Amino acid sequence: ADVKKIAVIAGDGIGPEVVAEAEKVLKRTEELFGYKFETEHALFGGIAIDETGTPLPEETLKVCQSADAVLLGAVGGPKWDNNPKETRPETGLLGIRKALGLFSNIRPAFIFDCLKEASTLKPEVLEGTDLIVVRELTGGIYFGEKFRRETANGQEAVDTCAYNVSEIERIARQAFEIARTRRKKLASVDKANVLETSRLWRETVNRIAVDYPDVELEHVLVDNCAMQLLRRPSSFDVIVTENMFGDILSDEAAMLTGSIGMLASASLGEGSFGLYEPVHGSAPDIAGQGISNPIATILSVALMFRLTFGYHDAADSIERAVKEVLDAGNRTGDIAVDKSKAIGTLAMGQLIVDAM
Amino acid sequence: ADVKKIAVIAGDGIGPEVVAEAEKVLKRTEELFGYKFETEHALFGGIAIDETGTPLPEETLKVCQSADAVLLGAVGGPKWDNNPKETRPETGLLGIRKALGLFSNIRPAFIFDCLKEASTLKPEVLEGTDLIVVRELTGGIYFGEKFRRETANGQEAVDTCAYNVSEIERIARQAFEIARTRRKKLASVDKANVLETSRLWRETVNRIAVDYPDVELEHVLVDNCAMQLLRRPSSFDVIVTENMFGDILSDEAAMLTGSIGMLASASLGEGSFGLYEPVHGSAPDIAGQGISNPIATILSVALMFRLTFGYHDAADSIERAVKEVLDAGNRTGDIAVDKSKAIGTLAMGQLIVDAM
Ligand SMILES: CC(C)[C@H](C(=O)O)[C@@H](O)C(=O)O
Ligand SMILES: CC(C)[C@H](C(=O)O)[C@@H](O)C(=O)O
Repeated sequence: ADVKKIAVIAGDGIGPEVVAEAEKVLKRTEELFGYKFETEHALFGGIAIDETGTPLPEETLKVCQSADAVLLGAVGGPKWDNNPKETRPETGLLGIRKALGLFSNIRPAFIFDCLKEASTLKPEVLEGTDLIVVRELTGGIYFGEKFRRETANGQEAVDTCAYNVSEIERIARQAFEIARTRRKKLASVDKANVLETSRLWRETVNRIAVDYPDVELEHVLVDNCAMQLLRRPSSFDVIVTENMFGDILSDEAAMLTGSIGMLASASLGEGSFGLYEPVHGSAPDIAGQGISNPIATILSVALMFRLTFGYHDAADSIERAVKEVLDAGNRTGDIAVDKSKAIGTLAMGQLIVDAM
Repeated sequence: ADVKKIAVIAGDGIGPEVVAEAEKVLKRTEELFGYKFETEHALFGGIAIDETGTPLPEETLKVCQSADAVLLGAVGGPKWDNNPKETRPETGLLGIRKALGLFSNIRPAFIFDCLKEASTLKPEVLEGTDLIVVRELTGGIYFGEKFRRETANGQEAVDTCAYNVSEIERIARQAFEIARTRRKKLASVDKANVLETSRLWRETVNRIAVDYPDVELEHVLVDNCAMQLLRRPSSFDVIVTENMFGDILSDEAAMLTGSIGMLASASLGEGSFGLYEPVHGSAPDIAGQGISNPIATILSVALMFRLTFGYHDAADSIERAVKEVLDAGNRTGDIAVDKSKAIGTLAMGQLIVDAM
């Protein structure tokens, strides 16, 4: 079989611990399915700042660019929070998204049957919730011009939010395509009653919709979406939105499932290349204790198999293994009802590898 | 007693119905407490577009400017949704906020004991939730320059988000003052890891904080706040944030209480003048049927009494009456568990007036 190159970025906090378990899953996949992976580790985020002075070293970018996919743990931590902009982990994150052309962030949010009680929402409200947030990732206010200037009212700060038709078209098409493989419902979220970028967004989505008559499209204002996610989460299928709204809504959606330690995400560009990472952060408070939950990262590998490599058999095997291990009652601390029975990162990883 | 002038804007949809009940409460307050109100009705929103061609007629602005406070029902509806910008109800709303200098939107979100089951959150999570979102209302991306231009990638739309130090200072001070009268906790929400306006926001809030050593300040990133509202709503006391984030988070906070038909809001400027309105919208789908819930508008009157007039006795009377009527089991359709026992707008209004 041809060898797939995977750039592995462990990052900060619990990143290295959870990535280590995901790498065991890669190894096990080779044994079970005959696929071949070549992994190359690279520095990124806080650790890269400490060791090289910059969150996204040239070398790391090269490793990613020559890979077929990237597996990322998590970056950031209080140690670097007060650094100037150029030496903050987030700057590396925005830089890698832009440099690799990852314009689309895909975040599935669904309920693990055995974890229903973990949500703060009532089980009957959550029932059947299974949605994907498709977030535009390289445009909008994140990447627009930013500056300060002096005014009569003291210093003024300015951020610019811009979107052009091509940027909206490509993310809209991707969301329609995804909706087509699912329940065929797309909610496009904007603030068209206030923002010019949202009005262009809505016009463009409506134009693209003509090519997808089989997908039911609704437009939802962002404030209303924040409410509807709480009121009727199961009624959403695919949600597509711009960068800033997507940041907020995808976190809200993830949290309401109660399964944030379990959710994977993919950042995609044109073609099959993708960067895969857990939705959760670097959790510096529990780093190094061996108690973090590796499942989101392991499921990120499954997502990579599906979306970048088309290895659906191996993805199925991972997802089934996770389900089996959870169904048998195994829990890391974050998802355990009885914390005293919680197992550690290594034990959870091993159980999943064994169950594949 | 001196006569307080109140501009009454019924607006669209259920606006006129709910405002009519609130006016009965004003009348009853005169009888019971000897206060004197002079109300003047004015056209605003969709109905103003229909009758005068503009959502915010000059005359309406004059009525508001010569009043001590404004009571607003709700504006908007599908009829005007596709109008060009200048003739949309929302444009009137943004216009009136700016023209009256209402830079601060105060939205209390709390649980009505008897309505705990109305929330989609688990009762044990909601327990004790009682927070206020203080939203900056006349700055940010809502009011920044907006335009389109042609680019090589098709049309591009641009929105500008700007904040100066004075704008941030005045809203921060107000939030600290409010926190001081409550549990003395302030969460300032921004996206300082990405936005320049947020970095100025955070610096400025930190500077103002020096004057409020008795208030515990935390900075929360907006995406994290959207999650924490779901995870630990009762831990928030006062949340202060910029216009766009406040729009999203205040709706999320309102919805999680399950009491959206019950929540009032105030928009304030310098001095005691304020505009008061229910958090819910114009609900065109149920307008004219006499089934809407007037409680949020009635409680907006109580908020007006407290914040603009200092009529705490009358405010107490209204709030007690609402509680009594609810405790006795009376419900409009939106909050009734058994819909067949729901009472109408008029009946609910009358019960509250009688209970005052
Ligand atoms: C760390 C931050 C810059 C980043 C973002 O806002 O995109 C994060 O919140 C995310 O969602 O990946
Ligand atoms: C109607 C709209 C312009 C308005 C806003 O976004 O401010 C509304 O959502 C609100 O919160 O009052």
